[in-house]
Amino acid sequence: MSSFEKMHLLGIRDLSRDEIETIIRTAETLKEISDRDIKKVPTLRGKTVVNFFYEPSTRTRMSFEIAAKRLSADTVSLSASTSSMVKGETLIDTVRNIEAMNPDVLIMRHSMTGAPHMVARRVSACVVNAGDGRHEHPTQALLDLMTIKAHKGRIEGLKVSIIGDIANSRVCRSNILALTKMGAHVTVAGPPTMIPRFIGCLGVGVTDKLDQAVRDADVIMMLRIQLERQREPLFPTLREYAREYGLNAKRLLEAKEDVLVMHPGPINRGVEITPDVADGPSSVILDQVSNGVAIRMAVLYLLLGGKAA
Amino acid sequence: MSSFEKMHLLGIRDLSRDEIETIIRTAETLKEISDRDIKKVPTLRGKTVVNFFYEPSTRTRMSFEIAAKRLSADTVSLSASTSSMVKGETLIDTVRNIEAMNPDVLIMRHSMTGAPHMVARRVSACVVNAGDGRHEHPTQALLDLMTIKAHKGRIEGLKVSIIGDIANSRVCRSNILALTKMGAHVTVAGPPTMIPRFIGCLGVGVTDKLDQAVRDADVIMMLRIQLERQREPLFPTLREYAREYGLNAKRLLEAKEDVLVMHPGPINRGVEITPDVADGPSSVILDQVSNGVAIRMAVLYLLLGGKAA
Amino acid sequence: MSSFEKMHLLGIRDLSRDEIETIIRTAETLKEISDRDIKKVPTLRGKTVVNFFYEPSTRTRMSFEIAAKRLSADTVSLSASTSSMVKGETLIDTVRNIEAMNPDVLIMRHSMTGAPHMVARRVSACVVNAGDGRHEHPTQALLDLMTIKAHKGRIEGLKVSIIGDIANSRVCRSNILALTKMGAHVTVAGPPTMIPRFIGCLGVGVTDKLDQAVRDADVIMMLRIQLERQREPLFPTLREYAREYGLNAKRLLEAKEDVLVMHPGPINRGVEITPDVADGPSSVILDQVSNGVAIRMAVLYLLLGGKAA
Repeated sequence: MSSFEKMHLLGIRDLSRDEIETIIRTAETLKEISDRDIKKVPTLRGKTVVNFFYEPSTRTRMSFEIAAKRLSADTVSLSASTSSMVKGETLIDTVRNIEAMNPDVLIMRHSMTGAPHMVARRVSACVVNAGDGRHEHPTQALLDLMTIKAHKGRIEGLKVSIIGDIANSRVCRSNILALTKMGAHVTVAGPPTMIPRFIGCLGVGVTDKLDQAVRDADVIMMLRIQLERQREPLFPTLREYAREYGLNAKRLLEAKEDVLVMHPGPINRGVEITPDVADGPSSVILDQVSNGVAIRMAVLYLLLGGKAA
Repeated sequence: MSSFEKMHLLGIRDLSRDEIETIIRTAETLKEISDRDIKKVPTLRGKTVVNFFYEPSTRTRMSFEIAAKRLSADTVSLSASTSSMVKGETLIDTVRNIEAMNPDVLIMRHSMTGAPHMVARRVSACVVNAGDGRHEHPTQALLDLMTIKAHKGRIEGLKVSIIGDIANSRVCRSNILALTKMGAHVTVAGPPTMIPRFIGCLGVGVTDKLDQAVRDADVIMMLRIQLERQREPLFPTLREYAREYGLNAKRLLEAKEDVLVMHPGPINRGVEITPDVADGPSSVILDQVSNGVAIRMAVLYLLLGGKAA
Repeated sequence: MSSFEKMHLLGIRDLSRDEIETIIRTAETLKEISDRDIKKVPTLRGKTVVNFFYEPSTRTRMSFEIAAKRLSADTVSLSASTSSMVKGETLIDTVRNIEAMNPDVLIMRHSMTGAPHMVARRVSACVVNAGDGRHEHPTQALLDLMTIKAHKGRIEGLKVSIIGDIANSRVCRSNILALTKMGAHVTVAGPPTMIPRFIGCLGVGVTDKLDQAVRDADVIMMLRIQLERQREPLFPTLREYAREYGLNAKRLLEAKEDVLVMHPGPINRGVEITPDVADGPSSVILDQVSNGVAIRMAVLYLLLGGKAA
């Protein structure tokens, strides 16, 4: 049995390989709770989990909320539109006010890189980063690793290609950190405007040729084109993006037979991925969502002092 | 004891008379839970009920949420404004993502006719239609029948007049299907622009004279004028609508003494119904709301395998 | 042991000194629940608490929701934007519909003075005023008194200065009523445009000189400048307001050494209070927030028939 000593989950950067393995192993154990007839254990009864989302989200907020409830924690949700933000309060004041109500965990999504880290330094509650700007989204990377491990039996030594808007994706960044830490070989691919100049420093290969990225991969992670995050257009049209960098059935024929196709959702069908691929036998996209609940259960459980599996 | 074998509640059209009776009888049994000091039974502990409303709603969403909580289920709410819809995801993708988190019931309201049916074909959770476009709103019809039965002792053979915007009302449509199935005689009345041409095929009488519809009725159902649903004006002014088709005290004098006045809410006071009638002795409008919680408890209970009362 | 016979908590005006003491004493007893490892007692299991907020709020809604959950009540939240309000329903109709679903407590915030009182006369549920227009905000005053008592050991005989927008603040009004009832001496200070003409009738002293209000006070309550509530500008600029009526470190030097600095939040840092004072050793602002959960637990507990501590 491993121990888990962290108080916050702010980013993959802060986690050791051992800690990543502990979270995934604990999630694997907790996952069967969601398959039971009574999907609930009393583990976190009487704990207060606050969902504090400054950016809209369906699946991530819902995934955390369901995870908390299946462990019997109480949940309270705040969103930016109903928050004091509109009244001109600073983020730190809002958060310290929340803290004064004795929550146990503060799950936070914010458009500003580092916002959860700043908050974590000032509150006594556990802070979980549910996405900060273009920086990190650690539970997404953890659920991706859990999904890969479930299908491939391991992560070490696998070739993983991440394709799309590398520069703007916090999902990509957390996955690069997590995958390289676990010994996978990561290649990133996308339009030159979407690849940051110093990405090589993170220990990944780079290509702007989709075919090359697809051919050797054990795992293909397609990223979402986040039109809402782009300040200026990074490619001429969606149609051209799809033609050059979208994953379709023809391209997938060039890949290994047992390749896994992943996507963090929500999918832009016909842009970064065609429907036949998204719904095809290589796709594990919905497994990712299921594993997301398990990973978030594990994170809440371990942060609040549960024994690692 | 009857059995209930349905997996979804999509519309009254799919229910047999026996199934309708089973739901109402089960609701009658569960209703007393809401009158207890401790309004809660552990029946659905560990079940996850997702409220997924693409159209705004107070009472229906709240009614389902309270019903679920009184049966000890966990509830999670999504609304269109916070959902991935804004990010361009398809309805089916959103719903399959929700499904991957292992909910037991998906309660869904959508502006598109047939949306819950489309969803039900693709997910393993139970789907409850909480209103789809101008099509069906089955729990509303069931609570209306339960209310009529509570006051009249029966439904068979009663004369029910439904008055207002017949063409645009899903409440009307579900009630016509339910009432005729149970052996009531239904007459619809309203401005000619609000009566669909082939309404007679549903086995109902038609009139554009309010007085005639009121005179013989055992039950008068007033429909809400849904200005938000009309593409072009269907009558000159609200004042004229009220004068021609609104229910007021003078008109009610022509009705049977023990007539029931119903309205699905929210009421436009002074338009389709005057305050003295809405609040008068014939009105069972608030009984409808109370019975709504009981009907929704019964539906959740039966769909999730509870034994019928 | 005192008794608590009230059915609603609408305003401090309706409470006797004995009732105020009972609520505070009960809150002091319940407070330690929020410090436990398992922050939950089964006291209100099976009760339904409805949060009905017509004005946006983070901390008050969240405080009530957490209070209810720590007592094991079920909570349902409605906000104006999702409510039937948009469909033209009257407040009383909306509330009677809610009532028909058998809630035990209706917590209500509304921009209209007296809205909760009007509602309380018409429903059988307990009504708690969480702020009505510029009228009352009783739980805020109760938590303020609890905080003062915790630090000073008493309220009677203390000198309390309330500073800012006296005319527009429901927090101020409820505090004046509560503090004078408990035997404190209240002085209000602010720009002449923000002091109502007949404020003296409430038994408080008045000054437009901040220094004088600060010098003798045992407690300084700074009020929030509520720009959103002002129909026309009541002072030239925020900068001038801060210079004339803001509390800063230099001014605080003139105060008693053991003075308490309070603020109902959210804070406009640099306007009514400088950061060094808000975060300084005299500030009990976050204690107010913590005590808010305890006061709301006490109010829910006592209204629903709990025995007073």
